[in-house]
Amino acid sequence: MNELTSALAAALPDGRVLTDPDVTDSYARDRTFVQPGRPLGVVLAETRDDVVATMRWASEHRVPVVPRGAGTGLAGGATAVDGCVVLSLARMTAIRELSPQDEIAVVEPGVITADLDRAAREHGLMYAPDPSSYEISTIGGNLATNAGGLRCVKYGVTRDSALGLEVVLADGRVLNTGRRTMKGVAGYDLTGLFVGSEGTLGVITAATVRLRRAPGEMATVAAEFTSLRDAAAAVSAIVAAGCQPSMLELMDRTTLQAIDDWKNIGLEPSTRAMLIAQAEGSADEMADLCAAASFVAVSSTPEEAAELIGVRRLAYQAKERLGQCLVEDVCVPRSVLPEMITAIEEAAARHGVLIATVAHAGDGNVHPVFVFDRGLAEPPEEVWAAADEVFRAALDLGGTLTGEHGVGLLKKRWLGLETGPVAAELHQGIKQVFDPLNILNPGKAI
Amino acid sequence: MNELTSALAAALPDGRVLTDPDVTDSYARDRTFVQPGRPLGVVLAETRDDVVATMRWASEHRVPVVPRGAGTGLAGGATAVDGCVVLSLARMTAIRELSPQDEIAVVEPGVITADLDRAAREHGLMYAPDPSSYEISTIGGNLATNAGGLRCVKYGVTRDSALGLEVVLADGRVLNTGRRTMKGVAGYDLTGLFVGSEGTLGVITAATVRLRRAPGEMATVAAEFTSLRDAAAAVSAIVAAGCQPSMLELMDRTTLQAIDDWKNIGLEPSTRAMLIAQAEGSADEMADLCAAASFVAVSSTPEEAAELIGVRRLAYQAKERLGQCLVEDVCVPRSVLPEMITAIEEAAARHGVLIATVAHAGDGNVHPVFVFDRGLAEPPEEVWAAADEVFRAALDLGGTLTGEHGVGLLKKRWLGLETGPVAAELHQGIKQVFDPLNILNPGKAI
Repeated sequence: MNELTSALAAALPDGRVLTDPDVTDSYARDRTFVQPGRPLGVVLAETRDDVVATMRWASEHRVPVVPRGAGTGLAGGATAVDGCVVLSLARMTAIRELSPQDEIAVVEPGVITADLDRAAREHGLMYAPDPSSYEISTIGGNLATNAGGLRCVKYGVTRDSALGLEVVLADGRVLNTGRRTMKGVAGYDLTGLFVGSEGTLGVITAATVRLRRAPGEMATVAAEFTSLRDAAAAVSAIVAAGCQPSMLELMDRTTLQAIDDWKNIGLEPSTRAMLIAQAEGSADEMADLCAAASFVAVSSTPEEAAELIGVRRLAYQAKERLGQCLVEDVCVPRSVLPEMITAIEEAAARHGVLIATVAHAGDGNVHPVFVFDRGLAEPPEEVWAAADEVFRAALDLGGTLTGEHGVGLLKKRWLGLETGPVAAELHQGIKQVFDPLNILNPGKAI
Repeated sequence: MNELTSALAAALPDGRVLTDPDVTDSYARDRTFVQPGRPLGVVLAETRDDVVATMRWASEHRVPVVPRGAGTGLAGGATAVDGCVVLSLARMTAIRELSPQDEIAVVEPGVITADLDRAAREHGLMYAPDPSSYEISTIGGNLATNAGGLRCVKYGVTRDSALGLEVVLADGRVLNTGRRTMKGVAGYDLTGLFVGSEGTLGVITAATVRLRRAPGEMATVAAEFTSLRDAAAAVSAIVAAGCQPSMLELMDRTTLQAIDDWKNIGLEPSTRAMLIAQAEGSADEMADLCAAASFVAVSSTPEEAAELIGVRRLAYQAKERLGQCLVEDVCVPRSVLPEMITAIEEAAARHGVLIATVAHAGDGNVHPVFVFDRGLAEPPEEVWAAADEVFRAALDLGGTLTGEHGVGLLKKRWLGLETGPVAAELHQGIKQVFDPLNILNPGKAI
């Protein structure tokens, strides 16, 4: 330890600070290829007071702090910068309260998303937001990125479930935002401002989240199509018919091939796309709306449903077997989903890049995954060129650069295209109010 | 006109500026008793450019601007201050776009809330937020206050339907926030920040709002109870059973009496409370859960349902017949609704004040209406004393001062009790970023 980290360790209970580079490097990256800087140290916070002490120390010494959950992010938001302290919230795992009557829970940021969902299910409730990584991601990381997920098409994103927050500010002061009630309009929406701010405005040390009634029996449909356009048309038809799916997922041929190569799911040569839809009640209407499908399977048991959805949950890992992945996250109005997918296919062909696409299709949220050689430190030029085209196509179609992953480091150079110079100036002004020394996750998100 | 207002008129098309005090005074107040200041003039904006010109002029001359919709607010948020210009958005009534495919609409702030809902219904959709005043309130006012309403128990408040905004800033610059997509996390949540900021951060000139599938046939139940506690217990039971009501309204004896005195609804002497619940599908389960009721009516036709709900929609007007009203708006966790109502009854008794209460009970949002003499300019001391007790009781019960009406002028002196000094400082910092000259609705909301 040097003088700085010794002072930090002295301000905290024993064992909270790590400085061995072999260890700290493992806290320096998220799930992207982005090359991290080298942290001074890592704080393994166990209590709010640990976070307060860390931020006071960081303010005093002007040391950058990079807050971190499970490191499952896909935008470089938790990537360490040189000379920073990584502040891990992963050990703050208490569910402080779970009230079935009020349908709320008060949780610490290190709680694993699926663990909260399971705790709620014991009372007939659920925690709705379910990013694909929900078995390993934390609530704190979900809040920092305003994570989406498969069920969000029906229940909304993380912000829609966040009622109030306990936040440690850059200078170590503690702020409570929001409320425990379903509604509330006292003061500006600071809760909504922290959610999705990627650790740049404060460190969330607890959240009051909304739970919802767990749905009854679910019907699940998987349909294979010989054209992506037919699959996209079925998405529109299912939404327009008012089926209110709680999951409506699309996978392209490249994704299905990667899964088939790994798990042998019996993929037909003519299949270009698969749709997986889930809704409460009967599957018959959704199956009928997939009339153009070459094959339709309807689950008649929860086990069959889990199997159909399991295929979707394999998608990302299957792609990681092909090489390194740049996972993108554009979101467009649902009506232009076919145009968005066409634009992705054209960018792939034009630049000779392998792009495998899955979509939370009911939301218009498309994840084109750009696969590149494992030996490279960074995506090659043609991948960035194809990604640039995809981003611009999304914006031209009235969409956004990022539906649920966040801006992090990866999308910063495109952010201005979407939000414009006036928003950029306001972002900097807000940042200055919350973090005048610019020590909270500097260089990310805005 | 004086030199100032002449310069304003010159910057705008003909006929946009009113300065006759007899006319401008009618734009100076909202629906509260709060005594307004005297405006310099009123701008009747018809376009975004009118708003831009007004804000540029106001910045140049440092004139306070009080934005205004229909003036149906209940917190003094649109009350004029001396020497201000009232900026009415009521003439900006275009629905610029309504896309059934994408389930969104782009609307100007002067659109009447119910008109947007009706336009959506033509496509099988609805605009969900429905403040009690929705036949006369505007979308702009709803956004400024983050208005709730009867259906919010199922569909959320105005912020939950706001996807993106066009905003004119204090200096006349135009900002576009948010998106047209269901999800999006590019940059800080400026949309959420403007919603509920009561005109203190910018002037909303258009909003992209989410529409939802209109529900199918609705079942409506009205139940009368001989005790408020039994009625509150039925609320909890209906929510816990997963009936997912889209309306769950409670009225106390005083409210029912006022309605009966006016419209003769045949109120029984023993009735202490009435519950009106509405959900998609069957009413039988909800009726069963009102087992403790002295009388239960189930609607079998839409006309009958409209009649049951009509009773609820009369509540506020019925109370206005009794005298001047201070309408309050506390919100508590649903499980402590009985305690909240008891606290209101105790405050009424202790201070000898007539309080008539309705509640969006499914949300825990309680509106105690303090009735006082029509001859008074302000509520008498005992009304404020009782209101103070009610506010403190709400906070003690884990609730908020305002579920949906906003802070305005009326609740400013209590706001600090709820949000604390750290939030107050951050509020001022944010205000300073957006409105450094403090000309936008000064003195309100924060």
